[in-house]
Amino acid sequence: MSVVSHDPRTGLPAESAEETTTAEVLNIVQRAAGAAPVLAATSPHDLREWLRAIADGLEAHQDELARLADTETALGLDRLTGEVNRAANQLRFYGDVAVEGSHLGVTIDPRTDTTPELVRVNRPVGPVAVFGASNFPFAFSVLGNDTGAALAAGCPVVVKAHPAHVGLSLRQAEIAHQALLAAGAPTGTFDVVVGHQAGINLVQAPGITAVAFTGSQSGGLALWRLANERETVIPVYAEMGTVNPVVVTRDGSRDMGSVAAGFVGSFTLGSGQFCTKPGIMLAPRGTHAAQEVAAALRASSPTPVMLTRAIADSVETGLREMEDAGAVVVDHVAASGEGWSAPAAVLRADVSALRPGSRLLEECFGAVALVCEYDGDDELREALCALQSSLAASLITGGEDDAQAPALMELLSRKVGRVAVNEWPTGVAFAWAQQHGGPWPSTSVASATSVGAAGLARFLRPVAFQSAHDAWLPTPAQAANPWRVPRRIGGRLVLGTDS
Amino acid sequence: MSVVSHDPRTGLPAESAEETTTAEVLNIVQRAAGAAPVLAATSPHDLREWLRAIADGLEAHQDELARLADTETALGLDRLTGEVNRAANQLRFYGDVAVEGSHLGVTIDPRTDTTPELVRVNRPVGPVAVFGASNFPFAFSVLGNDTGAALAAGCPVVVKAHPAHVGLSLRQAEIAHQALLAAGAPTGTFDVVVGHQAGINLVQAPGITAVAFTGSQSGGLALWRLANERETVIPVYAEMGTVNPVVVTRDGSRDMGSVAAGFVGSFTLGSGQFCTKPGIMLAPRGTHAAQEVAAALRASSPTPVMLTRAIADSVETGLREMEDAGAVVVDHVAASGEGWSAPAAVLRADVSALRPGSRLLEECFGAVALVCEYDGDDELREALCALQSSLAASLITGGEDDAQAPALMELLSRKVGRVAVNEWPTGVAFAWAQQHGGPWPSTSVASATSVGAAGLARFLRPVAFQSAHDAWLPTPAQAANPWRVPRRIGGRLVLGTDS
Repeated sequence: MSVVSHDPRTGLPAESAEETTTAEVLNIVQRAAGAAPVLAATSPHDLREWLRAIADGLEAHQDELARLADTETALGLDRLTGEVNRAANQLRFYGDVAVEGSHLGVTIDPRTDTTPELVRVNRPVGPVAVFGASNFPFAFSVLGNDTGAALAAGCPVVVKAHPAHVGLSLRQAEIAHQALLAAGAPTGTFDVVVGHQAGINLVQAPGITAVAFTGSQSGGLALWRLANERETVIPVYAEMGTVNPVVVTRDGSRDMGSVAAGFVGSFTLGSGQFCTKPGIMLAPRGTHAAQEVAAALRASSPTPVMLTRAIADSVETGLREMEDAGAVVVDHVAASGEGWSAPAAVLRADVSALRPGSRLLEECFGAVALVCEYDGDDELREALCALQSSLAASLITGGEDDAQAPALMELLSRKVGRVAVNEWPTGVAFAWAQQHGGPWPSTSVASATSVGAAGLARFLRPVAFQSAHDAWLPTPAQAANPWRVPRRIGGRLVLGTDS
Repeated sequence: MSVVSHDPRTGLPAESAEETTTAEVLNIVQRAAGAAPVLAATSPHDLREWLRAIADGLEAHQDELARLADTETALGLDRLTGEVNRAANQLRFYGDVAVEGSHLGVTIDPRTDTTPELVRVNRPVGPVAVFGASNFPFAFSVLGNDTGAALAAGCPVVVKAHPAHVGLSLRQAEIAHQALLAAGAPTGTFDVVVGHQAGINLVQAPGITAVAFTGSQSGGLALWRLANERETVIPVYAEMGTVNPVVVTRDGSRDMGSVAAGFVGSFTLGSGQFCTKPGIMLAPRGTHAAQEVAAALRASSPTPVMLTRAIADSVETGLREMEDAGAVVVDHVAASGEGWSAPAAVLRADVSALRPGSRLLEECFGAVALVCEYDGDDELREALCALQSSLAASLITGGEDDAQAPALMELLSRKVGRVAVNEWPTGVAFAWAQQHGGPWPSTSVASATSVGAAGLARFLRPVAFQSAHDAWLPTPAQAANPWRVPRRIGGRLVLGTDS
């Protein structure tokens, strides 16, 4: 059996790859398990060198990779060329986070008259299965955030290649293999498997200790259920597409035309295929928000081409379902009819239609957005409470004196993982303070993040060592602090550079 | 319907309480949800005052509480009097951890040319359901570690009272209510429910945001399944009883008599009703370890009285099942026959009987332990790999030069949450560096701990604020750092006292 990708612009086959057999998956996981203790003992400096080697490899093949990616994703050469850089810089960033060392959480309580010496340190969990996303073939795929964070944490990685860009997946894996070999990483540090059944086998393989996934609700929850049925249950860190509300305050709606243009730019970006795509706007009644957004959509007149035929079909289905749920199409741009093309559309609905269980509360992946107008703060609050929790939200305000803003910030912060003010949710910087995951159902582990420095925590598990000789402790917990990491000693934080 | 506790020494009814109705549970959760925003905005200093008030309340009623507890648990006045102190000091400790402020994880990335300002802060999740354990009626019950950590994190708590000490549970709740009222905490900060169905209703109540549990595998996994079936899935932090291996090295077995005495002291402590009770000892062949342990058991001749009839019955059942699985009773102390008395016993088995699926790999809650002798390092490694993961392990060595120790430390640290060297696993200090949870199936979330400073993390969720005005940020994330918490600014750790 082989997996075939397609050129979304034409619908013709693009690349193909053989599915990984059950036996091969087990071999790959066994090699990863063999590498795990080596990685766990590898210094963050060396892990960073490996990540930098992969990053350099990506950039050395930037044009080739972007062209290959464009054939399989139709996301455009400019965007894809930039995304190669982003992916490379993400890997370097996670390497820097590893070297900083706070993720190891080294904590030392010296012996007292009544308590033993305790040394607590976060240890790499072991082989991690990474399921890449289709919509970011570099930044959230084979060598994306999850792979970067897992390697930086000292865990081997086995990636399940996304079928929509299987050719690019294998090419990226090749580049990573070469870079890791040259950098001195052990066999089993990184590998890739192909095929739906191989992905299932991977999650079920006893040697896998954690799963990272970015993508759809259905895909993420299926993996979560699968892992929960294992004899040894393992965590699934699934960050999933959601409706990501945009709330416009009365003060924020003064220049509704420019708000509408920004909103259209955000929800049509990448043909609306962002997990942080804003799917619903709540604007004050009387602002003609839906008409303004429709006008902005006409002005931009996007021509969405989706990543797969299934996604293209689901845009049409989603539009019909939203209409059945009481929404009305204000304006739309028809699909071109070529390949995996799909329409772009703006719908409006009465805010009262935002009831628990309504289709309007769910994501429609693609360049589709819903606009609702609210009458007062109570109606707005009720609508926001009815929404499912999301990865992100935007609050469009009139500035610091906006009387609605503080209460809305508080309310939104209970519903999402990130609140952007006067900015759109689609941009997700990789940084120390980033948070990508939000409450259920946007994320299977609400406290987790696939983007940013805290992403490493998913792949570490604390262990306390009681009254152990110094030489028997994991390197970062030893008294001499050989990796110069920040530590907490006797309850007091001590910076790595001071010790 | 009412819940009745019994005096384990006689089996006669002790205390009783009415079950909380479904409507009452929902009211209680609603009050907790109402208090949640108030607690989230309360400074750690004030939270600490509330915790100290409860601690003072416990100590002011120390003798009364210990007597009541002894009637319902038969754990002995000395132990229970000490446990009141411990519980009070735990609450004070979690208050200190809250004031230190690292748990809030404040992280600030200033705006750059290419990235927005991001401020990340851990926020209290909301009402927490706490299921207390029967074996620590103070330290892990109504006002135990879970309640202390949740309140310190800024979350209201609803406790499900343990039926075996329901009278003590309600008395502790009364004391907490009075203390919290006097300290100025809002209604809904803390409450308690009674009855099995009330516990189920509690986990299913939409307002509950997390569950903490300490107890048996069956109880913990039942709650985990229940929470996974909710429309909005919430995390269940269940830390569950396990077999907790003790490994004796060749050098460590030189004075097998004193090792055996220590082992017996540990596995019969509290009638063997510790979740960290060592259930299996692996000692070198030729050390007569089983006979030595049997001799030490005879010398100490404990008279176990169990917390409930079900536990007493399960000791007898467990012994039979272990014999069926190939273990042989070396010696035992018969049950007295009064109340919930149970036997104490030492069994031995061939190390080859430690195969996946064997009953010998599972906990027998009570004063029962298995001894196996290993031939060489390979056989020992194989046996350890066959064991289920546990909360804790002990490694009994001959000291710093013990050649077996480093590899065993590494191996054990992959199987448990805490490795104690030349000490027994039953003592669990509450401290900054403590780790109580271990890998599945000992803990539903392997990275979590119910004991120690890191316990607060279970009840917090990070939120990133992008380009938000300072006044709109949660207090600890504001530029002026009003709570003087440690922060990471631009990737650099800044101590709370420096800022």
